[in-house]
Amino acid sequence: MPRKSLPLSEVYRLLEPGPVVLLTTAGNGKANVMTMSWHTMIDFEPPIVGCVVSNRNFTFNILKGTKECVINIPTVELASKVVGCGNTSGREIDKFKMFGLTTAAASKVKAPLINECYANLECRVVDARMAAKYNFFVLEMIKAWIDPSRKQPRTIHHLGRGVFMVAEKTIKLPSKMK
Amino acid sequence: MPRKSLPLSEVYRLLEPGPVVLLTTAGNGKANVMTMSWHTMIDFEPPIVGCVVSNRNFTFNILKGTKECVINIPTVELASKVVGCGNTSGREIDKFKMFGLTTAAASKVKAPLINECYANLECRVVDARMAAKYNFFVLEMIKAWIDPSRKQPRTIHHLGRGVFMVAEKTIKLPSKMK
Repeated sequence: MPRKSLPLSEVYRLLEPGPVVLLTTAGNGKANVMTMSWHTMIDFEPPIVGCVVSNRNFTFNILKGTKECVINIPTVELASKVVGCGNTSGREIDKFKMFGLTTAAASKVKAPLINECYANLECRVVDARMAAKYNFFVLEMIKAWIDPSRKQPRTIHHLGRGVFMVAEKTIKLPSKMK
Repeated sequence: MPRKSLPLSEVYRLLEPGPVVLLTTAGNGKANVMTMSWHTMIDFEPPIVGCVVSNRNFTFNILKGTKECVINIPTVELASKVVGCGNTSGREIDKFKMFGLTTAAASKVKAPLINECYANLECRVVDARMAAKYNFFVLEMIKAWIDPSRKQPRTIHHLGRGVFMVAEKTIKLPSKMK
């Protein structure tokens, strides 16, 4: 994808509406990817995100150990690959190969960017105090990339049991909210 | 609205896709409501939710003090009221009166249910350790209500600056994911 740097102050607009994302990590020289829907913005700038990575996931220990990851945002064209990444484990397979996802090097972390996703957010774990009790990690986004050619990316939003809402229609209202 | 109890194990399906919600609280005998988009599921059952309530919001001290709230989920028909609640403060006005929102008593908390919303989730604060640093509260949902007549609620999802994505189209894929 044609990648352009996105100002960090704009990142909340990508995650606030609740898209399913692909979280990449890299540990022991091996990259992995998992599907994630449980995340929230915590602060605007620097952009802070909270997310849940279950300790049953292969990603959990890698994230805890390396303190780095990339949040990649897919669109509906990738939906079956996203489900595939959610239904398999990096303990057993190379998901990139299995689902035909290609990667590029990130600029500030070892975890890779997924080329097929329209946005890539490089993150560092800044607080893991709630990882033991809630599997909850606090991330700071340190570099953001976006495909400038994608004007209205049709993100997918998980409704449970394989049902996804596809972002399409938007409305604009007068608002003082950021 | 015709209100039906929703099994707590089903609640994640309402919040996981990232809708804008209306958070009600009650302190000193006075109810308040704020608009909130920064929330995430943390666990399925009992359903645990994390959310950000800024310490600049009137709601912050009430939530910290009473440890109770209701997450009400509006649909697009309420969009202008939702924006109104986000652009005003309960310090200055009675938002229910101002925006024509009516309430009913909750079953387990003092905060009210908003009748115009299609779902109401009664919550208790179970962890406020991260409130000081991140304005982040961990809630346990203890009772959930839904309007059974609303089959495909068109929730709204904030994209920033008054732009909202409206949930409409859905797709279903074979998935083992809950």
